[in-house]
Amino acid sequence: MNREQMIEKVKVEMPERRWLHTQGVMETAVVLAERFGEDPVRAELAAILHDVSKYWPTERMAGIIRDKGLPAELLLYDKELWHAPVGAWVAEHEYGVTDAGVLDAIRYHTSGRRGMSKLEKIVCLADYMEPGRDFPGVDTIRELSREHLDQALLAGFNSTISFLLEKGKRIFPLTLEARNCLLE
Amino acid sequence: MNREQMIEKVKVEMPERRWLHTQGVMETAVVLAERFGEDPVRAELAAILHDVSKYWPTERMAGIIRDKGLPAELLLYDKELWHAPVGAWVAEHEYGVTDAGVLDAIRYHTSGRRGMSKLEKIVCLADYMEPGRDFPGVDTIRELSREHLDQALLAGFNSTISFLLEKGKRIFPLTLEARNCLLE
Repeated sequence: MNREQMIEKVKVEMPERRWLHTQGVMETAVVLAERFGEDPVRAELAAILHDVSKYWPTERMAGIIRDKGLPAELLLYDKELWHAPVGAWVAEHEYGVTDAGVLDAIRYHTSGRRGMSKLEKIVCLADYMEPGRDFPGVDTIRELSREHLDQALLAGFNSTISFLLEKGKRIFPLTLEARNCLLE
Repeated sequence: MNREQMIEKVKVEMPERRWLHTQGVMETAVVLAERFGEDPVRAELAAILHDVSKYWPTERMAGIIRDKGLPAELLLYDKELWHAPVGAWVAEHEYGVTDAGVLDAIRYHTSGRRGMSKLEKIVCLADYMEPGRDFPGVDTIRELSREHLDQALLAGFNSTISFLLEKGKRIFPLTLEARNCLLE
């Protein structure tokens, strides 16, 4: 499947506004890859597919988590988190992506994790700060991203954790570990 | 060792203001135990000893963590956290405490953990809200504690996590798990 075929196939999996977001993540991931010395083609590939299953029915995502051997503890957390590991499975099995680093960048783009690769950081950060994003602190994240990949991503995780604290929602341990790891 | 002997021995392990704090935790833990149906004698025993090693030199605490088989990952986190598991070891080996529930209440009084017992919650909450404590949100915690042990403790964990976020400090995973567990 070439780039254009992949884009056509992903586009119809989501509403138009989410496709605009995906395009924003693609562009931002390419810029960040060039800035911080990562391969922009891999960054864009992960960005194209990062939200591929975001608008799937909950049961379809839960089915993949259960039937395809994804970590079962995911089912205990907000379903907001499911589409990332499910997306990595879909990228591999329905889009033929074989680059394990790209699959990990899709898998951890929402939660982060301890010891993230540069590619994982770039996709995660692009998802936080693509031009369509608007939340308290996003400008600080964009400003930090001009020079500091880790500090920008740390600011992103801080904003997520603050948000979940305020809303009285559970915080995913991987996100905490990702933040702790960036502070080390 | 009777109660009075224990108090005399603990008192000299810390500066006077910390002993005043310990007395506040003892009184508060007894009140909370009576309120929520726990044994006030056990709650007071854990409170007497909860900060026994708080003012020990870092190396003395690290030595116990290393030599007595305490979880080595503690050494990776802020030393603020060390005195709780070290205190539990000291309570057992230097004060003859044999009640495992009391030892756990000392061990987890700072971090919390998943699936806390009622006694653990009471000691942890008493440590947050004893009369000498003064930080943003403490009055809300005290108010919640009149009826809701879990909600008051959750508010305590939220205040800790917010504080560590703001200060750019690492958050201990056990505290996150304790909070997530209370939200379930």
